[in-house]
Amino acid sequence: MSKVVAVVGATGAVGREMLATLERRSFPIARLVALASPRSAGQRLPFAGGELVVEALGPGSFVGVDLALFSAGASVSREYGPIAAAAGALVVDNSSAWRMDPGCPLVVPEVNLEAARVRPRGIIANPNCSPIQMVVALKPLHDAARLKHIVVSTYQATSGKGHAAVEDLLQQTRASLAGQPVAPSVFPGEIAFNLLCDWTAGEDDYSEEEWKMVRETRKILGDDAIGVSPTTVRVPVVSAHSESIHAQFHRPMRADEAKALLRGAEGVVLMDEPYAPGNHPQPRQAAGTDPVYVGRLRDDLAVPGAINMWVVSDNLRKGAALHAVQLAERLLL
Amino acid sequence: MSKVVAVVGATGAVGREMLATLERRSFPIARLVALASPRSAGQRLPFAGGELVVEALGPGSFVGVDLALFSAGASVSREYGPIAAAAGALVVDNSSAWRMDPGCPLVVPEVNLEAARVRPRGIIANPNCSPIQMVVALKPLHDAARLKHIVVSTYQATSGKGHAAVEDLLQQTRASLAGQPVAPSVFPGEIAFNLLCDWTAGEDDYSEEEWKMVRETRKILGDDAIGVSPTTVRVPVVSAHSESIHAQFHRPMRADEAKALLRGAEGVVLMDEPYAPGNHPQPRQAAGTDPVYVGRLRDDLAVPGAINMWVVSDNLRKGAALHAVQLAERLLL
Repeated sequence: MSKVVAVVGATGAVGREMLATLERRSFPIARLVALASPRSAGQRLPFAGGELVVEALGPGSFVGVDLALFSAGASVSREYGPIAAAAGALVVDNSSAWRMDPGCPLVVPEVNLEAARVRPRGIIANPNCSPIQMVVALKPLHDAARLKHIVVSTYQATSGKGHAAVEDLLQQTRASLAGQPVAPSVFPGEIAFNLLCDWTAGEDDYSEEEWKMVRETRKILGDDAIGVSPTTVRVPVVSAHSESIHAQFHRPMRADEAKALLRGAEGVVLMDEPYAPGNHPQPRQAAGTDPVYVGRLRDDLAVPGAINMWVVSDNLRKGAALHAVQLAERLLL
Repeated sequence: MSKVVAVVGATGAVGREMLATLERRSFPIARLVALASPRSAGQRLPFAGGELVVEALGPGSFVGVDLALFSAGASVSREYGPIAAAAGALVVDNSSAWRMDPGCPLVVPEVNLEAARVRPRGIIANPNCSPIQMVVALKPLHDAARLKHIVVSTYQATSGKGHAAVEDLLQQTRASLAGQPVAPSVFPGEIAFNLLCDWTAGEDDYSEEEWKMVRETRKILGDDAIGVSPTTVRVPVVSAHSESIHAQFHRPMRADEAKALLRGAEGVVLMDEPYAPGNHPQPRQAAGTDPVYVGRLRDDLAVPGAINMWVVSDNLRKGAALHAVQLAERLLL
């Protein structure tokens, strides 16, 4: 049955990707409401061969809405998420606002869909992009041998910070190539031909992004004993996050067993052919596609029974828009 | 006393940096011989306000030479290193040819200078750039608490593959920005706005670059029991390698103790101020400077007594040219 769908934050990077995903997956839509700040109201967005006119988000926006996909930042989600839920919509929230709330399930469809059935607040939280691709890759191994400790270093794309961040990368890169001074607009420093550690302070000198790797991984996998040692880094890539993961388990895991578990796992493309130039997951190849790519599976050289792996996925798709729409498909259709 | 110095591979990225380093550090030079392949003979290189004319490398190139700095690839070093040593030169070799040879010390001046005194083959091997910056940062901690296990993920700059690799990055980036097809020349795939895992196959699905992290770290620190779990990745950065390091010790280490040990450690600049935007080591700021920058020191969240850190250093300087010249200074002057 067709649904009335609202996309909150429709003009942002993830919002646009949500519209594209709804269209690409032929989500059955009775009416689509594109919502954004009053500043963006009246703007036109292409959809399904026609156009949507963006409406200003307000308390009355959710009357009759079956599904509300939020991607407009945490403060908007905190204010309007409960309003949409009270109006009867299924709320799938892509911000950080509700992720650690005990009354909101934090769901990755391939990993813990059953958690989405119980939602006291009517809101399902979409995890941050970096934990999503990590848990999709690790879940089959966790089921087999129970994760004990993860050391993860990220190589995160600029699009995780929105359209303007990608523009900042491109503009900085052009200036840099022309030998002109680089003037960062979104990033707090140079990102062209450079690396930046995430700058949002969390506790104990770990950034907020790093704490998300710890807390969201545990909540999604439902195991608070999993140790996570995260370092998150922003790289001059447009889209698709990459992660270098060292994983230890309660019983020994071998790279060969991990490959067997991941071959055909839902949402995963395993790249396990013999080692050859370029034959591994790469952000430019992953960008614009749906899967979580897993490669470079190796038995650890120091810890028997541990493995190392390289995981790449499009942060706007699997990390956000695709993920939200997949959830809605499984719960509403 | 002034020395006769030969630079083998003078026209390459590291060779040019060696010339610049000799000049910058006012190394006392009686005569400087710039050597390269016959193809490059006759080329002129700027040096100390004048010019050097490149000579073709040959068996007679080392007569009367006190110091021969090699950076022309492993096969040249294997052939000409022993010839230069037999002619009486101190040979400092920047290639991988002699690093794991039991008759050649593998030396980082700040770490194990004493090993350089015994050199049965007359050749001192310069480690690979990635292990150098890691051991400079870890040595004070190893001395205090003995390293047990390192998980390291690298973010390596293109200049580690030479001038042509940097040009490939820049040319690919220009094409990419112009919306034109990207045609890699040095890299086996796209490096502009992308990441590539190193493609030189080693054993057990680890790349040669990864094995260097394991074997060279152990040899330099003189401790074969140190476990190393490496993942090496090439990033679209011009110069300066970065490393995300998780380190475990035989006795517990705390981030505060590590900071105290690293503050003022030789060759290290500690960036340990409160966490703030951009206040951490970055490749663009490290490029063209000598130190190994260490920052983001954090107590591990999962393993008591372990720490995490972020280490950045110019791979052409500390990782190669500066390092070779520092060795020569300490042994010859």
